[in-house]
Amino acid sequence: MNKVYVVGLGPGGEEFMTAQARAAMERADVLCGYTVYVDLVKHLYPGKETYVTPMTRELERCRWALETAAAGRTVAMVCSGDAGVYGMAGPLLQLAGEYGGAEVEVVPGVTSALSGAAVLGAPLMHDFCVISLSDLLTPWEQIERRLALAAAGGFSICLYNPSSKKRADYLRRACDILLREKSPDTVCGWVRNIGREGQQHRLLTLARLRDEQVDMFTTVFIGAGTTQAVAGRMVTPRGYEAKR
Amino acid sequence: MNKVYVVGLGPGGEEFMTAQARAAMERADVLCGYTVYVDLVKHLYPGKETYVTPMTRELERCRWALETAAAGRTVAMVCSGDAGVYGMAGPLLQLAGEYGGAEVEVVPGVTSALSGAAVLGAPLMHDFCVISLSDLLTPWEQIERRLALAAAGGFSICLYNPSSKKRADYLRRACDILLREKSPDTVCGWVRNIGREGQQHRLLTLARLRDEQVDMFTTVFIGAGTTQAVAGRMVTPRGYEAKR
Repeated sequence: MNKVYVVGLGPGGEEFMTAQARAAMERADVLCGYTVYVDLVKHLYPGKETYVTPMTRELERCRWALETAAAGRTVAMVCSGDAGVYGMAGPLLQLAGEYGGAEVEVVPGVTSALSGAAVLGAPLMHDFCVISLSDLLTPWEQIERRLALAAAGGFSICLYNPSSKKRADYLRRACDILLREKSPDTVCGWVRNIGREGQQHRLLTLARLRDEQVDMFTTVFIGAGTTQAVAGRMVTPRGYEAKR
Repeated sequence: MNKVYVVGLGPGGEEFMTAQARAAMERADVLCGYTVYVDLVKHLYPGKETYVTPMTRELERCRWALETAAAGRTVAMVCSGDAGVYGMAGPLLQLAGEYGGAEVEVVPGVTSALSGAAVLGAPLMHDFCVISLSDLLTPWEQIERRLALAAAGGFSICLYNPSSKKRADYLRRACDILLREKSPDTVCGWVRNIGREGQQHRLLTLARLRDEQVDMFTTVFIGAGTTQAVAGRMVTPRGYEAKR
């Protein structure tokens, strides 16, 4: 009681959930979250109370969860991927102080950088950066600067929110920045609907990625300079070979 | 059959494993891996055959797994955290071509950037970089360069392998590089033995982190400029507040 679990579900399917995530949802009196995420799990807990809000009502949802916990109930707020990566763990912790006695516990999950990487092979085997291309909450200039620095550092890069209806050309703009530093032949890949029905993926060069149409359900991977395509898989060497 | 599952276990405890990881180990004829990781799971599958090799025998272990799969058996190679983040997915995929008919399937898991972040709060809520301080397989100059660029980009930074007996001063050297760009008051944190007996964590400033003694079982988090300490938790704002 008096607790909000903020739960990372992974890509959505039951098989990607941790036992800890399942236990938190089991214990909760009510499951809450963005409609689409609650829909992923409510069949697992038939009859359990749910509270859903649409996409743009994040803070409202956090306040409802904290208020409900402060009143003595146990809430599980569900997020796709990891609760702490562009998820709801942050706003819940920031607001918790206003709701005396409500405790927040973060339950981590498999974020799409990891689940997408597993589909493509092993693109994140060495140092990597995760960057969101959404400028809804972040100035575009900052995103550009981070892309340029990540490219200069030779990191593998995972892009979240690479596109949306209003931002149809953002991936192209991002690739143009990366192409100033990186070879057009850099091995890249994308995965769509990770772990869900209709999962698709593709390996391609950075030059081709620039002209690719992706949607908001896609996660994009840009290889480091060392990343290779090995029998249709995207692999960034860790360096064991060099040491041999 | 003819399959190597390379399985991310998460921090180690059963509660952090995904159902997919459990199913892969269940299906396997033999569990293999670094001794310490196999020890984390072998009690879950009593009587199941195991094959262990010590820390430095990574490629040997991969070759054994592929050879065993090529001979018609099913192998689960276990890794702590995620199989694709400084794990064994990469070398297995690179070598697989030499072992006709052996298929490699990557099973993702909760890497310590995510599990450690959940203990501290939500330090990775916005763009972040993961950097290993181990120079066993990577030139130190490259590590320095990545630290400097990650600091310049205002990323949250998660450091893997921050120290070892031979590299006792590496975290200090890393902090000195970060301090050229970042405030000494930057909110930082570390977690030791994540999800295991004796788990410990601490929030501290970057200036204090510089003089902290950490070991190889510790994951370190360096905040972005915006990261705050909120009631003892480390939180990087996502930006919802600004939008309100």
